[in-house]
Amino acid sequence: MAEMLTPLTDANRAGDTRYNLLADNLAEAIRRGTLPAGSRLPSVRRSAQTYSVSINTVVAAYRRLEDRGLIEARPQSGFYVRTALPALEVQHLPHGPAAEPADDVLDLIDTVFAAQINPAYTNLSLACPQANDFYPGAKLGRIMSSLLRRQPHLIGQYALPPGNLALRQQIARRSLALGMMLEASDITLTHGCMEALQLALRVTTQPGDSVGLETPTYFYLLPLLASLGLKAVEIPTDPQTGLSLDALELMLNEKRLNAVIAMPTAQNPMGFTMPLAAKKRLARLMNDHRVPLIEDGLYAEIQFSDALSPAVKSFDKYGWVLFCTSFTKTLAPDFRIGWIAGGRFADKLRKLKAVSSMTESSLLSQTLAVFLESGGYDHHLRSLRRRYEAQVDEARALIAQYFPQGTRSTRPMGGFVFWVDFPEGVDTVALFKQLIEEKICMTPGTLYSPSGRYSNGLRLSCCYPFDVRYTAALARLGQRACEMSGLPPGLAQTTDDARADETRTS
Amino acid sequence: MAEMLTPLTDANRAGDTRYNLLADNLAEAIRRGTLPAGSRLPSVRRSAQTYSVSINTVVAAYRRLEDRGLIEARPQSGFYVRTALPALEVQHLPHGPAAEPADDVLDLIDTVFAAQINPAYTNLSLACPQANDFYPGAKLGRIMSSLLRRQPHLIGQYALPPGNLALRQQIARRSLALGMMLEASDITLTHGCMEALQLALRVTTQPGDSVGLETPTYFYLLPLLASLGLKAVEIPTDPQTGLSLDALELMLNEKRLNAVIAMPTAQNPMGFTMPLAAKKRLARLMNDHRVPLIEDGLYAEIQFSDALSPAVKSFDKYGWVLFCTSFTKTLAPDFRIGWIAGGRFADKLRKLKAVSSMTESSLLSQTLAVFLESGGYDHHLRSLRRRYEAQVDEARALIAQYFPQGTRSTRPMGGFVFWVDFPEGVDTVALFKQLIEEKICMTPGTLYSPSGRYSNGLRLSCCYPFDVRYTAALARLGQRACEMSGLPPGLAQTTDDARADETRTS
Repeated sequence: MAEMLTPLTDANRAGDTRYNLLADNLAEAIRRGTLPAGSRLPSVRRSAQTYSVSINTVVAAYRRLEDRGLIEARPQSGFYVRTALPALEVQHLPHGPAAEPADDVLDLIDTVFAAQINPAYTNLSLACPQANDFYPGAKLGRIMSSLLRRQPHLIGQYALPPGNLALRQQIARRSLALGMMLEASDITLTHGCMEALQLALRVTTQPGDSVGLETPTYFYLLPLLASLGLKAVEIPTDPQTGLSLDALELMLNEKRLNAVIAMPTAQNPMGFTMPLAAKKRLARLMNDHRVPLIEDGLYAEIQFSDALSPAVKSFDKYGWVLFCTSFTKTLAPDFRIGWIAGGRFADKLRKLKAVSSMTESSLLSQTLAVFLESGGYDHHLRSLRRRYEAQVDEARALIAQYFPQGTRSTRPMGGFVFWVDFPEGVDTVALFKQLIEEKICMTPGTLYSPSGRYSNGLRLSCCYPFDVRYTAALARLGQRACEMSGLPPGLAQTTDDARADETRTS
Repeated sequence: MAEMLTPLTDANRAGDTRYNLLADNLAEAIRRGTLPAGSRLPSVRRSAQTYSVSINTVVAAYRRLEDRGLIEARPQSGFYVRTALPALEVQHLPHGPAAEPADDVLDLIDTVFAAQINPAYTNLSLACPQANDFYPGAKLGRIMSSLLRRQPHLIGQYALPPGNLALRQQIARRSLALGMMLEASDITLTHGCMEALQLALRVTTQPGDSVGLETPTYFYLLPLLASLGLKAVEIPTDPQTGLSLDALELMLNEKRLNAVIAMPTAQNPMGFTMPLAAKKRLARLMNDHRVPLIEDGLYAEIQFSDALSPAVKSFDKYGWVLFCTSFTKTLAPDFRIGWIAGGRFADKLRKLKAVSSMTESSLLSQTLAVFLESGGYDHHLRSLRRRYEAQVDEARALIAQYFPQGTRSTRPMGGFVFWVDFPEGVDTVALFKQLIEEKICMTPGTLYSPSGRYSNGLRLSCCYPFDVRYTAALARLGQRACEMSGLPPGLAQTTDDARADETRTS
């Protein structure tokens, strides 16, 4: 078993405790199926020998995995890999023409946001981190206070396009981590990733155009497309490998798409990361067909594996890929500073940003630049990834316990959101209405598609503190779903099922 | 003469020095023509008696007026009101269909912004305050540092639409000063006024629609309209009274406009404020025709008179006026926090903002809210108005001295920009190209119209420190214009001219 584990000494994770490293390595083995469901872990003593660590380290690592719901202790017998939640199956799209996004989806989102702002509500679904201790607020605050002392005039100066140079230089320097080799001049700062996507759409399309998007997709894309007079064309996805490139190629051949918007890494809401070969093929397809790809890289720096899967942009030969992202989910949610590398559209984009909303605050940008330069970002990202991955595991363990038999779910490869499919008979819009009465808020699956599918689906988000209130709300959601479906909670366990599931997720 | 002056004790200006009050009152009398050009001011002793102030106060006030170029001392004779720059005449529009804004205007603006960023250049035209001591950066910095200490988690929290409530409450409370009675729920925070205008256009129009705008107009509106597929329709303006309502009414009757965008108070670039009756009629026209008016109120709080002219929005009966503004020119240029009161479009606007760029930073918004609540804003606005008004006067005095005979100019009623028309034979694009070689940057008049008119016009901006470098650059601009036109510098003075000019400006 030793050969499947990467060495415990990992230069990138110098600051980590040994038990965290061991737990993460074992979690990776479980995720890959090297340690299948139902299999017994080596004894504590044996593992201590294998990895040359102390008994205490192994015990702590096993306890960590237990907390994450990945393994369970059986009395007098040892530790076993728990049966995973069944994985999602590929879903088939309905026939029909391009859908026009409905406007009333916004009313539902309004309700969700109103609940999010109200502290009396528990939110299970939104991807709006409110977790004070997840982000280096104190350190950023010290940097900002120091800037304010030394450069109080910053506030009284007019921020000018294309935005703070120091930050754009830091972004360029860091772009290598995702395989891109950007220069500061390639980058335009934006007001979060949302504005980056909005500008990218405006610069690449005309009203009436058709834009291909993953299904399910980020729900705000649908009203955004509608506001720009664009048609949403759903492209099927596989819950593990992402965008169906065969379907995409067909649509491109038939010239049915004027642009494509996709999230190839840690997709929202499914959590998949496209395999490397698929990313390469995607970049080639878009360049061959000369159709712009708007790559939403919002979670690309929160991948759970230490070796980051590169951006599709890194394989972009002739500049047809526009890479959009933000520091909103990774570093400073409040600052709303994002950026875009617009490829062949970079110049037009820079000008469009200026006439759309001018530029971003120099004070906020400079604060981020100083933080990035100080080198604390990688350390912060590592602890953020670890935390989100552990919370996702814990949430999945609770689902396995409380949700109706037959519930399936994706296991995200990054970010903090994933997808749950209830068995038939559960309508998540009806569930939403029931739960909002109890001050529990979630986002029903119908939000994530322009054609109102996914009525038994649900996105969950693990960006909130995993406290009693959150877990109780998750359990309550499961209980309500059990009532609605008439099914008992828990996993329907057969060895065959477990094997089949492992094959699917591996 | 005493009756023309408002009493020196003005409750709104309790913190002012008496000599400043006296200087401002006399400047107002000169502007209105009560003290015409060439007339002699009362002796220092006489004025001291009239206003019950000390001799020293009158001497200081006269010196202040001299500095502002409004009066001059003649040896052995006393102080005289200087001849004002000739006022601009009404210009006539060319015939023809609605113009499509050209894209290459952006290239010129790019050059201007690049020069603005480069500290080696002196900028005479952009409205991007870089003046450190004009804005309460230190006080805002202290508020922010205190927020960071007491609420460091603010940075780690996700800002949610519709934006910080405390700030929206402060904005609502202050809206009375411009005659509006807004509530916090009427207001959506935006990324500066630029985004407010962009969202207002997107929420009221469809691609292909025609939007009426003042000519000349704010130059960024033209590429903004182009980016949204909108046609710009020029509406003539009078340099003193603004938008021609007769022309507007004709266009509305003929159903040629889908929306109108205008700046009825301290207009950019002309500086006019529409008379009260005209504002009322404008509001009525738009409501009667059910056509949205996008009111750009960016300089509405920097009016030079202490009694603020109300917003057109304050006469808006059925919600057809969308009021857009920002704290970018009045309080914190770097923060880029603006807002919009969308009338009947408020709900759609709020949703469009969320899918366009989500919302504004809570930390920055809360900082502004605390500042506004502390009551320091009115005092700051007063000193800002005074400063800008004095700089405008000084700039106009330099123009009278250095620009070619026959140069005309507007005298703005607020803000810090105004318009200059050179006599025939001066091409400001050619001037721009000459001066940029000398690292002096200005914005030629052709930028301000979609039809490339105003080739002998120029916008000047007085938002920069009025130092030797700025005044030397202004003098150099005049010198170059004299060379180009073959005309000598200075005013062509005849008593008749001066009288005629006074009549025009009064």
